[in-house]
Amino acid sequence: MTGSYQTLIERMKDIGRLSGVSQLLDWDQETYMPRGGVAARAEQSALLAGLIHERLVADETRRLLDDVTVHDDDFVAVTNVREARRVYERASRIPTELVKEIAHTSSLAKDAWGEARSRDEFARFSPWLIKLVALKRRVADLIGYETEPYDALMDEFEPGAKAAVLETIFAELREKTVALLQRIQASPRPPDDTILSQTFPEERQRVLSSRMAEAVGFDLARGRADVSAHPFCTTIGGPLDVRITTRYQERFLPSALFGTLHECGHALYEQGLPEGRRGEPIGEAVSLGIHESQSRLWENLVGRSRAFWKFHYSSLLELFPDTLYNVSLDDFYRAINKVKPSLIRVEADEVTYNLHIILRFELERALFRDRLSVEDLPSAWNEGMTQTVGVTPKRDADGCLQDIHWSMGAFGYFPTYTLGNLYAAQFFERAREDVPDLFDAIADNDHRPLLQWLRENIHQHGRRFRAGELVLRVTGRPLSCDSFVRYVTGKCADVYRW
Amino acid sequence: MTGSYQTLIERMKDIGRLSGVSQLLDWDQETYMPRGGVAARAEQSALLAGLIHERLVADETRRLLDDVTVHDDDFVAVTNVREARRVYERASRIPTELVKEIAHTSSLAKDAWGEARSRDEFARFSPWLIKLVALKRRVADLIGYETEPYDALMDEFEPGAKAAVLETIFAELREKTVALLQRIQASPRPPDDTILSQTFPEERQRVLSSRMAEAVGFDLARGRADVSAHPFCTTIGGPLDVRITTRYQERFLPSALFGTLHECGHALYEQGLPEGRRGEPIGEAVSLGIHESQSRLWENLVGRSRAFWKFHYSSLLELFPDTLYNVSLDDFYRAINKVKPSLIRVEADEVTYNLHIILRFELERALFRDRLSVEDLPSAWNEGMTQTVGVTPKRDADGCLQDIHWSMGAFGYFPTYTLGNLYAAQFFERAREDVPDLFDAIADNDHRPLLQWLRENIHQHGRRFRAGELVLRVTGRPLSCDSFVRYVTGKCADVYRW
Repeated sequence: MTGSYQTLIERMKDIGRLSGVSQLLDWDQETYMPRGGVAARAEQSALLAGLIHERLVADETRRLLDDVTVHDDDFVAVTNVREARRVYERASRIPTELVKEIAHTSSLAKDAWGEARSRDEFARFSPWLIKLVALKRRVADLIGYETEPYDALMDEFEPGAKAAVLETIFAELREKTVALLQRIQASPRPPDDTILSQTFPEERQRVLSSRMAEAVGFDLARGRADVSAHPFCTTIGGPLDVRITTRYQERFLPSALFGTLHECGHALYEQGLPEGRRGEPIGEAVSLGIHESQSRLWENLVGRSRAFWKFHYSSLLELFPDTLYNVSLDDFYRAINKVKPSLIRVEADEVTYNLHIILRFELERALFRDRLSVEDLPSAWNEGMTQTVGVTPKRDADGCLQDIHWSMGAFGYFPTYTLGNLYAAQFFERAREDVPDLFDAIADNDHRPLLQWLRENIHQHGRRFRAGELVLRVTGRPLSCDSFVRYVTGKCADVYRW
Repeated sequence: MTGSYQTLIERMKDIGRLSGVSQLLDWDQETYMPRGGVAARAEQSALLAGLIHERLVADETRRLLDDVTVHDDDFVAVTNVREARRVYERASRIPTELVKEIAHTSSLAKDAWGEARSRDEFARFSPWLIKLVALKRRVADLIGYETEPYDALMDEFEPGAKAAVLETIFAELREKTVALLQRIQASPRPPDDTILSQTFPEERQRVLSSRMAEAVGFDLARGRADVSAHPFCTTIGGPLDVRITTRYQERFLPSALFGTLHECGHALYEQGLPEGRRGEPIGEAVSLGIHESQSRLWENLVGRSRAFWKFHYSSLLELFPDTLYNVSLDDFYRAINKVKPSLIRVEADEVTYNLHIILRFELERALFRDRLSVEDLPSAWNEGMTQTVGVTPKRDADGCLQDIHWSMGAFGYFPTYTLGNLYAAQFFERAREDVPDLFDAIADNDHRPLLQWLRENIHQHGRRFRAGELVLRVTGRPLSCDSFVRYVTGKCADVYRW
């Protein structure tokens, strides 16, 4: 190992520190920043994005990467250099001015999106979207791609992902989902989920959220939980400062309930990354798909299980006695697992959720292949929802304006959600094999065995293994939709009493 | 005006943006950051301080300053260049590594100070203080000074201030304060201030704070109010994002009451700076002394006036009916203006407050003249308190550990508090001459005439005038303690019924 290595790592750590600062700017904007601060914040975000980029693509970085040599058997150094090279190669193709323009535009576009959604006026957002698509197309062209521009964009979130490969997996998933959905829709005894849309006062939901976050092991000495319009998890100081947000809806309990577990899943991953490698490339998460596997695992495979509620349902009854007095644990379990095509992705059940993603994947690909224009997006969205999910939005606010992602310029991000669902099911199947009494512990509100398994098999490795390598290593099989389909089929058999 | 001018201004604006980001890091650390995030935050703060410094002292800045020419009659450009030069000259003498070391050390030292104060263990803080004094002495030596190192430190907060000059003003102030105090202490009918130390539930104090902040004109669309251990006001996005914090003490009402008005005074100044010059040097406050004049003016000259409470006392009675049912407006007015030597600066009355500052000024000067060591600070503090204020701390937590400033490396900062008191009285005397019915408006809860006067005479100019120039321009006289002494003497005559 050369002296260049230490210098390179220090340089990457500084970039990581600045990224944490950048995350704080975003977190603050979504939680506490006064409305009037938008313009100043946009300038700060852009400036910081530019600084990070400049530092990353500086000649000095190139020189260090050219000079560095590491021993093949030093996996930390090998990973650090591999990942430093990867981000450098990507970043060095994009001029700093473009990076700053994207950051500045998306900071303002997020605000415009919020307005557009609350007023249900797509026209307020479309100029921003046109601009962001154009900017990201320039990025894709500069990064380069073999088959289609969308691959270059996905690579930012899921290194190495290819649209053509996903298309095949998604096609199989779609076919099996539709078959399962037909069987569900023919069921004579669907659960009653109206019990979840009664009035649940926010203050009590907050108590419940806190209890669940504590139960699964979210460490508040190294994190916080706040409220925002769009829930998220962000990492501000490596594993030392990980923050989640929740959205409370008084007339829809699942929003905060499963939102909290979801974000806790992300947070547990971040808090479980190797603390001794804080700021080094190896100390980061593998990819957004693997990240999402952690959130979906806690939200769904744990949070919508009978075992979880065997313990937590008493908490729910205690907090909402008047609302749930005649609802049994079984009624509740069936309600939170009801499958029904609906308009809003974040509120979708586990089965139809992926159909929402598949639609977004198709629309994004079409946008970047010039087969769809931003102006035609609302109608394409509505048609796609009708064909793919089986329901049609009446307002763009419930349609193509529902998600924040595009306002952030995050195209190619959505597919990682379905990848997460698939990874989660495959990981969890393996965890149950390795820890036979896993659900007994969960039913006792003891989440340590599962967390321990995740820490050992996934979290502690940081970015050592690529996503495909990790899933193969942990489960012995490459990614497929088999585990997921087995899981949802089993769940539905239980819920729908086949 | 040359092209260099625009480039120079853009450069200064970027530096201003980064300073805002740095302020956000501090604000977050004091309000919402999880405890575990300290180490990561220290690294981020240091990195950002280094970046700001590097950008400021870069050859490019030097080149731009050498090349720039502006017309003498363009006061905006003249001020911008003058101030850019001033900060450049100062900063260019300090190596970036030293700036980063100070930022990193003070970020950790703040935490150690909090611990030391809560445990009343000076020894936990003294190693940090020794280090910070040594670091700041290096700064003073690098900056250079004519008479003593302390001048170089004060210059950061109050450009051009000289210890020898302050010594003279402070000596006169001390003499007149002691004379006034003797008269007060001989008074047969002191006010009863125990009514302020009953139980005032925090929730209701919060309501009161909000009402007062709104009443004086703090704009929450461009600001926020939060809670922190040590109240402060910070500017994150120029006049667009100004934040205050308050400390609530259930058994001491004045803390939140006057703390809120104090921080609002700072915030009104920041929100009143010329928005069209956001980020430019001229768009900033004159000095900390002028800043403090604004906070003390609202806290004391307004907030402890009969007129203010003529309106707001009903609010107080409504919020704390059981506690204050037998306290008249006159009782309350006299209680909040009681003069009594005490241990804690931030809780001191208007008369003895400056004695606390004079002591700190003397101790700091002694530290930097090598006439006092950090180890001897607690005993020097206690002796000084006995001689200067007339009371002796029993614990360091109530003595030399009470203030956060030294943990931030802010030596030479305290004198600006007394400068603020003097400026405030001198400005306010003039405002009353210019606006004869000022107190009638305040009694009607209409603070617009005063705010308007401050906006016109002080805020809108930003940094156009130096502090001494501004006070001369606005009041027609150079700074002295005359107005202040007149003001407190009149107040005491009213409160002590001479």
